[in-house]
Amino acid sequence: MTEPTFTIPLWADLLGVGLGGVQGAMFASGFQGQRRLDLLGVAIIGIMIGMGGGLIRDILIGQPPASLQSNWYLLTAAGAALVGMLLAGVLNRVNTFIVVLDAVVIGMFGAFGTSKAIAFGVPEVPAVFIGVCAAVGGGVLRDVLMGLPVSIMHVGSLYAVAAGAGCTFIVVAHTLGLGIVPSAVVAIVITTIIRVLAVIFDVSLPEQRRLYRRKVAAETGMIPIIKP
Amino acid sequence: MTEPTFTIPLWADLLGVGLGGVQGAMFASGFQGQRRLDLLGVAIIGIMIGMGGGLIRDILIGQPPASLQSNWYLLTAAGAALVGMLLAGVLNRVNTFIVVLDAVVIGMFGAFGTSKAIAFGVPEVPAVFIGVCAAVGGGVLRDVLMGLPVSIMHVGSLYAVAAGAGCTFIVVAHTLGLGIVPSAVVAIVITTIIRVLAVIFDVSLPEQRRLYRRKVAAETGMIPIIKP
Amino acid sequence: MTEPTFTIPLWADLLGVGLGGVQGAMFASGFQGQRRLDLLGVAIIGIMIGMGGGLIRDILIGQPPASLQSNWYLLTAAGAALVGMLLAGVLNRVNTFIVVLDAVVIGMFGAFGTSKAIAFGVPEVPAVFIGVCAAVGGGVLRDVLMGLPVSIMHVGSLYAVAAGAGCTFIVVAHTLGLGIVPSAVVAIVITTIIRVLAVIFDVSLPEQRRLYRRKVAAETGMIPIIKP
Repeated sequence: MTEPTFTIPLWADLLGVGLGGVQGAMFASGFQGQRRLDLLGVAIIGIMIGMGGGLIRDILIGQPPASLQSNWYLLTAAGAALVGMLLAGVLNRVNTFIVVLDAVVIGMFGAFGTSKAIAFGVPEVPAVFIGVCAAVGGGVLRDVLMGLPVSIMHVGSLYAVAAGAGCTFIVVAHTLGLGIVPSAVVAIVITTIIRVLAVIFDVSLPEQRRLYRRKVAAETGMIPIIKP
Repeated sequence: MTEPTFTIPLWADLLGVGLGGVQGAMFASGFQGQRRLDLLGVAIIGIMIGMGGGLIRDILIGQPPASLQSNWYLLTAAGAALVGMLLAGVLNRVNTFIVVLDAVVIGMFGAFGTSKAIAFGVPEVPAVFIGVCAAVGGGVLRDVLMGLPVSIMHVGSLYAVAAGAGCTFIVVAHTLGLGIVPSAVVAIVITTIIRVLAVIFDVSLPEQRRLYRRKVAAETGMIPIIKP
Repeated sequence: MTEPTFTIPLWADLLGVGLGGVQGAMFASGFQGQRRLDLLGVAIIGIMIGMGGGLIRDILIGQPPASLQSNWYLLTAAGAALVGMLLAGVLNRVNTFIVVLDAVVIGMFGAFGTSKAIAFGVPEVPAVFIGVCAAVGGGVLRDVLMGLPVSIMHVGSLYAVAAGAGCTFIVVAHTLGLGIVPSAVVAIVITTIIRVLAVIFDVSLPEQRRLYRRKVAAETGMIPIIKP
């Protein structure tokens, strides 16, 4: 509790929630066949991706979840999920858009998580840990709720590494006395670049959804009936 | 923290825990074949359904879980799980009983969740959200622990809608200045009626357990060896 | 909050985290074929087993997680996971070692969980419950993250019973006025002995990993392609 004066600006927090909501709903909309979700299911995943990281962050820090102290978070996440559903039909084949959006969202959640942890006096190593959990936590909840293999355990390692790099930068910058706002911006850029480069240079990660279907088959060790 | 004087009466909380425990154990007892749980597994699911919603509610509000501040909750949940196991043999084919019990339990958890959130100063939208999470959270934990597809994401949408209607009523009634006790009673009735009507008029939801088995087959895209 | 002066000594807590990290990483390293984890995945499981029980314990008690208030926990868990990976190649066929290590870890997490709960004024029954959750919680998180059937629901009942016996002893001893340190030591011995005896006398539990593979086949009701 050493620096209680710092708070993440509401607009920045809501921007992360909104982008997460769009990304989550686009991802969930992409499933066809038996795994298809109804509209409410897509909305739940959107809200989960938008708000899940922040919830996990606050529970780990030991604070009441900030996203449940104001009406704006849920309204933003739900609205963003709606936008994501509409965009899914138009943009779901524009993989570049999805990948970059995903990377920026992970960067923001990680940066906010580590910044808030530092502000509440959490030491360096757990501050990075909380940032990484905030970055990838929403995705873990999504995979568990959708019955998918948890991506972070397999293909998703790159997420954790990219988020960890950004969060580590914040801790180092804070130790050096740099301001938390410019540090967070640089951290988001670092995470985004690592994640996007990882996708570009790793030919096995060209498309999330297709990969997931292949992963389902690989994980269960059986060929699914579902036609892609 | 605007109205710290309100607390859910212990008997009401324990009634919800007890009915949830009965319902959870009856549900878990219903599984046959390879998915069959041992007695301890059935008890765990009963306790989870009875207490899971309240745990999630309190964690989201940022309070120490009320159900772990007294011996009565666990004793009630465990006793209720025992009753549920015994009743399962007798009543598991009386679908009406299971469906109505399930609907009342969801209504109670939702009403208690939103009421407590309001009492701790949570704004309107997250108060409804917390109520819905309390109502459906126990079922999500159950599905994850049992390795079932998470029902709320697929067939279970109606749960969330029914719970959401009841919780929204409480928030509106509170804004209009109505007392929280009569509001909660009406909310439970609203959720129960919506949920029961949904089951009656939706021919695809005649029996939970059979549906789940079919869902397992549909979800994995393969015909299971398990003979119903 | 009746006895706020008691705290688990840091070295004891870190010993539990370290042994848990070794055990988790050894377990996760054992998987071959399609379920094989990459190095980061193994490290995550090690950290999860080392720290997961304590996180769940503190969230249930309503305290900020102790393992995130110091750098040592994560460093210990990560280092232990590394050791576990190295040991896995050497010792993974020495089943006795794995089984005993697992039993001791469960005993420590259970004893620490119940002791801390008592220290924060939690009543007897939930104090035992929190201990059992701390003992088995890491394993549940592991199974969910790895997409395995949750062992505690099926084969793992013996874990919960063994942990419950140790935790109950602590509560009884505390009621009788015995000191918490000797009580915790005895509780760890009780849990370890019950668990090890259960493995020795139950021929169906000779090896965890093989059992899990068989369980996967049994649970899904299909023969997996994975060759053991």
